[in-house]
Amino acid sequence: MTSSTRKRILILGGGFGGVYTAMYLEKRLKRRTDVEVILVNKENYFVFQPMLAEVVSGSIGLLDTVSPLRRLLPRTTLYIREVELVDLQQKTVSLHPGFQPKQQVLSYDHLVLALGSVTDFRGMPGLYEHAFPFKNLTDALSLRNHLIHVLEEASNEANPQLKQELLTFVIAGGGFSGVEVAAEMNDYLREVCRQYSTLKPQEIRVILVHSGDRILDRELTPDLAEYAQRILKKRGVEMRMNTRLRTASQNAAILESGDRIPSKTVVSTVPSSPHPLIEALDVFKERGKVKVLSTLQVPSQEGLWAVGDCALVPSPGKDTYCPPTAQHAVRQAALLAENIVATLDGRHLKNFQFTGLGKMGSLGHRSAVAQIIGGIKLSGVLAWFFWRTIYWWKLPGLDRKLRVGLSWFIDLLLPADCVQLKLDEQQAIAQAHFEPGEVVFEQGDVGDCLYIMLKGEVEVLVETAGAQCCVARIGQGEYFGEMALLRHKTRSATIRCLTSVELLILRQGDFQALVSSLAGLRDSMEKVMERRLHVVSKESS
Amino acid sequence: MTSSTRKRILILGGGFGGVYTAMYLEKRLKRRTDVEVILVNKENYFVFQPMLAEVVSGSIGLLDTVSPLRRLLPRTTLYIREVELVDLQQKTVSLHPGFQPKQQVLSYDHLVLALGSVTDFRGMPGLYEHAFPFKNLTDALSLRNHLIHVLEEASNEANPQLKQELLTFVIAGGGFSGVEVAAEMNDYLREVCRQYSTLKPQEIRVILVHSGDRILDRELTPDLAEYAQRILKKRGVEMRMNTRLRTASQNAAILESGDRIPSKTVVSTVPSSPHPLIEALDVFKERGKVKVLSTLQVPSQEGLWAVGDCALVPSPGKDTYCPPTAQHAVRQAALLAENIVATLDGRHLKNFQFTGLGKMGSLGHRSAVAQIIGGIKLSGVLAWFFWRTIYWWKLPGLDRKLRVGLSWFIDLLLPADCVQLKLDEQQAIAQAHFEPGEVVFEQGDVGDCLYIMLKGEVEVLVETAGAQCCVARIGQGEYFGEMALLRHKTRSATIRCLTSVELLILRQGDFQALVSSLAGLRDSMEKVMERRLHVVSKESS
Repeated sequence: MTSSTRKRILILGGGFGGVYTAMYLEKRLKRRTDVEVILVNKENYFVFQPMLAEVVSGSIGLLDTVSPLRRLLPRTTLYIREVELVDLQQKTVSLHPGFQPKQQVLSYDHLVLALGSVTDFRGMPGLYEHAFPFKNLTDALSLRNHLIHVLEEASNEANPQLKQELLTFVIAGGGFSGVEVAAEMNDYLREVCRQYSTLKPQEIRVILVHSGDRILDRELTPDLAEYAQRILKKRGVEMRMNTRLRTASQNAAILESGDRIPSKTVVSTVPSSPHPLIEALDVFKERGKVKVLSTLQVPSQEGLWAVGDCALVPSPGKDTYCPPTAQHAVRQAALLAENIVATLDGRHLKNFQFTGLGKMGSLGHRSAVAQIIGGIKLSGVLAWFFWRTIYWWKLPGLDRKLRVGLSWFIDLLLPADCVQLKLDEQQAIAQAHFEPGEVVFEQGDVGDCLYIMLKGEVEVLVETAGAQCCVARIGQGEYFGEMALLRHKTRSATIRCLTSVELLILRQGDFQALVSSLAGLRDSMEKVMERRLHVVSKESS
Repeated sequence: MTSSTRKRILILGGGFGGVYTAMYLEKRLKRRTDVEVILVNKENYFVFQPMLAEVVSGSIGLLDTVSPLRRLLPRTTLYIREVELVDLQQKTVSLHPGFQPKQQVLSYDHLVLALGSVTDFRGMPGLYEHAFPFKNLTDALSLRNHLIHVLEEASNEANPQLKQELLTFVIAGGGFSGVEVAAEMNDYLREVCRQYSTLKPQEIRVILVHSGDRILDRELTPDLAEYAQRILKKRGVEMRMNTRLRTASQNAAILESGDRIPSKTVVSTVPSSPHPLIEALDVFKERGKVKVLSTLQVPSQEGLWAVGDCALVPSPGKDTYCPPTAQHAVRQAALLAENIVATLDGRHLKNFQFTGLGKMGSLGHRSAVAQIIGGIKLSGVLAWFFWRTIYWWKLPGLDRKLRVGLSWFIDLLLPADCVQLKLDEQQAIAQAHFEPGEVVFEQGDVGDCLYIMLKGEVEVLVETAGAQCCVARIGQGEYFGEMALLRHKTRSATIRCLTSVELLILRQGDFQALVSSLAGLRDSMEKVMERRLHVVSKESS
């Protein structure tokens, strides 16, 4: 059978929904050559999300939570690329170019949307620049590296106020994700700080901010939620209930209650936005998710399906929708594979029936909470053991089971590790957010960056004979810091924010490369372009 | 005893020389409170260099080769910072600022230079932009990720020429480092490509380029070197002897022999440059290294010592210098610690006596070569077993021994892993190098970058009615690619290099942020600065 007559099933996304759909399709299409399955994902691995928080503390190896897609899906064609465009009319998907700048366009007969949701701080000044998201492996590793960086700096900090700021950690969101991250961070920081002779565990403050009355109030029954809260409190986690994280600056978390918590570490597990591709798609949506039938078909779009976190699947028998959990995504994937094959063969489709087995969350340090169907509730070591066993069992592939098992074993024997894996290159252009009254830099500070004001206003303060006076104000579109850059080694004035301020930060080296190349660039660009367009159109005619 | 009367020993660098000096000092100063030891390093871990090549193939865990400095040096004060300046007159060292933009200055009584050497491609156009160095953990991880990226792209590449280019890997340098990297890469690529249904091991070309007659010609006796070469050839590594890597472009390695090998992966283990701090130091140097006495003192600089790769230590009894190996650095560190303590106590200093125990190198896949004192030579599995045992034994700390042991055990059981750990953010400003005749992009390509010409000349080719003609030339300081950026989605012309070309690449998003902020920036900067300087000087007077 030639490839042109084969039916093509195209899956977008490599999370639980997408990967399990492909796995179930591989099983059902084992000996069939008339159907081809393609999966597109921007990473070549599948992340086992429930164990992501453990990466922060390093109680499992950095890569133990991830499985190579190729190992999981030997008969699926994989494209490790970003998706640029979905064209429902033409039934094609365009991929971002690889090494060569050529666009790749894949046509399909069936398209499975399994793109999940994303953490998106755009449009949230302060969070965008300074908050740590916690959604994927890169987030977990960045957070881990940052925690170690902060401890290293705190260990030699003479200023007690700054030391406390460095040792304060704020986590926003009291759902499972926020609670697990807070618990793991708290355990890890208190253990690893023993290796720093100048740091004491009691100097560490981990603060969990939640909009509800108690943590996990939407996930668990009141008694279990209260149990979880008690456990975390006993371990030293502070709680700020009935408030939200409003924004973050370079030096603090700012709550909606007006409180300002000085801290260099603000983690937000809260905003879960629709994937940009789903947002751009012209289908019926609610809360940013694609509404599907109980068969997982997208209504009035032949050959279009959605699964997992990006889909709104009716919950069987109830007037509500399935929650965005792994157990639901996996069951949806099984049904989806069955229904696509049924469509290919002209058989009847089935409806989604699964109602959930229960909920559980780790509280770190050999404690957990679980609420299972039939009204069974577990807590403490038993729940923790249950939690580990279930997820270990669910880890795809024997090799990961072995690796994670060994890591847990080693973790029992060895102390926590504090290797900071600096992989992230210093970005040439960074952004920063400051709140009114905060200081960007002080007179006499060392400086090698230029600041461009994207928004807001700052004042320039110069200290002479012990008195500080304002010599200028700088507003939007202007810049400052160029003097230390070009002439001095230290800052000749203090910059204090009058309003909420957004800054673009250019480092010295990049600044010089750019200024020498870009001089007058924009002014001349339009002219040059006009001339060239003219030449091209003459040639083409 | 107050801190001001305590003697301070300051060690710069956390490689074998620096870390072992601190370790030996901790032992010798156990119960003394009159001496303080500080070590400054930019990473908070020590890399066990001899096992770095194994990180590429993943036969040991990503972090198993590194040990946290705090665990190794519990009684040493650590500063995890970059060193900015060494002032021999004032006896101070300035550190790069941390979270706060304040400079930290440390004074010392004894200063130990243990900064090693660096890989520095600056001033080597082509290599700077496109060659992979292989010196530290970040290099090893970047290379590993790149190899997997290349395989992913090759697996779906329809153009056979481009596929071959993707599957060709060039390593420059036939010393131990180059040979070990080539061997590990070759093993890994041939094993892992079995997981890609569209790739065959025989499609993979690994090419080792060396300036000598045979590999390892400076390190081993001819018979052992030939043995090593035979083993690598049998495993499929191609050799290009008596030539050097001249440069690299985005699509090829260019040899001094004039050969152009199309490839996306060029690894250079060759250039080892002096550390910039050593370069800036006003002491007597040879080949960029600090010349020291047999006592490891820097002549006529009281309290200044150098050890390891950045030092030129006379080889005992010979008219030559110690080679830059770990075994020498560790022995030098032991002597250095002894001599510093002797100086503090007014005792006589000793001379460096160690002459080396032998040399060994891994050839991957259970084979190695070793040449030990007394004329003993080993090769094959025996040498490999010997290699592993020695280095495993030398791994600092019981926990690393356990981790590496377990990793090796797992490696025997499980297939090679191909998880690509994308941690490196896309850089806002990249650079690229092209050779004459190479194409930057083709008419019809997808494009979202602007190119600024730093050096060289390109021609703009437009195809009309099947014929290609040159419509313009673009030279230094000019730019191109702005049309696809602003108006079109695809390139309206082909850009081909007339000379060797250096480009600055700006991605769309960053370009827009910059252009809107930087308009006319340079022109107005001098004026604004004059005005502000005027205000400041008025205020200060």
